[in-house]
Amino acid sequence: MNYKMVLQYDGTRYNGWQKQGNTEHTIQGKLEAVLERMIGEPVMVQGAGRTDAGVHAYGQTASFKLETGKPAGEIREYLNHYLPEDIEVLSLEEAPERFHARLSAMQKTYLYRIGTGGRKHVFDRKYIYCQKAELDIRAMKESAKVLLGTHDFRSFCSNKRMKKSTVRTLYDIQIEEDKREQEIRISFTGNGFLYNMVRIMTGTLIEIGQGERRPEEIRVILQAENREAAGFTAPPQGLVLVSVEYE
Amino acid sequence: MNYKMVLQYDGTRYNGWQKQGNTEHTIQGKLEAVLERMIGEPVMVQGAGRTDAGVHAYGQTASFKLETGKPAGEIREYLNHYLPEDIEVLSLEEAPERFHARLSAMQKTYLYRIGTGGRKHVFDRKYIYCQKAELDIRAMKESAKVLLGTHDFRSFCSNKRMKKSTVRTLYDIQIEEDKREQEIRISFTGNGFLYNMVRIMTGTLIEIGQGERRPEEIRVILQAENREAAGFTAPPQGLVLVSVEYE
Repeated sequence: MNYKMVLQYDGTRYNGWQKQGNTEHTIQGKLEAVLERMIGEPVMVQGAGRTDAGVHAYGQTASFKLETGKPAGEIREYLNHYLPEDIEVLSLEEAPERFHARLSAMQKTYLYRIGTGGRKHVFDRKYIYCQKAELDIRAMKESAKVLLGTHDFRSFCSNKRMKKSTVRTLYDIQIEEDKREQEIRISFTGNGFLYNMVRIMTGTLIEIGQGERRPEEIRVILQAENREAAGFTAPPQGLVLVSVEYE
Repeated sequence: MNYKMVLQYDGTRYNGWQKQGNTEHTIQGKLEAVLERMIGEPVMVQGAGRTDAGVHAYGQTASFKLETGKPAGEIREYLNHYLPEDIEVLSLEEAPERFHARLSAMQKTYLYRIGTGGRKHVFDRKYIYCQKAELDIRAMKESAKVLLGTHDFRSFCSNKRMKKSTVRTLYDIQIEEDKREQEIRISFTGNGFLYNMVRIMTGTLIEIGQGERRPEEIRVILQAENREAAGFTAPPQGLVLVSVEYE
């Protein structure tokens, strides 16, 4: 049977989503270990987005195949019981045989949270990137418009040896400022994201908001097709995979 | 010069507000250490509420006296720079000579957050008490009404050798349920709170919400003037000192 699950996690303690060699301390590793414990044989879990170390998820989606007599609700309860307190399965259901969390995904939404004006954000400090500057949100919005649509996003990709296509489509970028909380939230929706793409777009938008770059530069950066042209990689803790949409 | 400050902290890592002998790892201890570093001599900081280990604050208020040429804004910046990332001074201003954060306080508001239905509350897990039951919020509200007003709250005090008056006045108790988030929030406003009083009132209300006790029992518990009569002490992580009001 094929299953689809939606899960939430605080990525602070983990080496990201993807299991890597001996590094067991990953979200995928934790999930696979509990499923293996449940049925007594190895289970492979596919995640829609390979979140980096320190990146969080409100709605990561994953799929896996296994044979068991248990109903889906019981599998979910088993997982939540044995998973640590910073990982929670929100829903789990049977899925069509061909469903694959990553390959079937139509679009994903990521959110990046930026603290402004030097506030410490005591309770959210592990879920927000705090920096001292006040950002020019109008300039950031103007730049974001240029990123929308289908482009070669090679300049916004940390993987220099990326051999597959680096063309992606961004459907939407929302930039909202909460003045009272001194927080700016940028959400990105697209058909797919390259390695570190959201964090590099965010870093570039922050540099524009700080006045270090001009909004017009976005066009030049895209055309350069070179990572060096874009801004810094914003740190992982401000990033959350919000949701994954399927047909 | 006398100063008043309002501060926020995540109490998870601390042994509570109050400095105790060698136990330096307290909020008061951290604040006094930074102020001493600034002016080169010991400074005594008075907090409005002596929050327990693991209890948080959105708006703790504290006062202290010291002589310095620095304006209040600079003292605040100095404190925020040297305080750890889980303590933040939100405001700091000069206060009348007779102002004392605890003795001048007119009322305080505490909030207790309860998770229901077994959700893990991944991102708030250090700021909420998660339990599996669904609680009968109507019964809890009915019971809360009985607690309002002026009573001897000895039954809701952990300090058995309390020699001072255990009479306090509760002005308001608000119980709100967020069904989507599976969370119940109880806020208590009163002229003062005894040791563990909010946590014992909360534990008792939870037992009523679970149907283990009947709402009418509140009257009997108050009359007993005995800690044994009341419910369990709800754990510290769900509790926050929200604000302190002065004349």
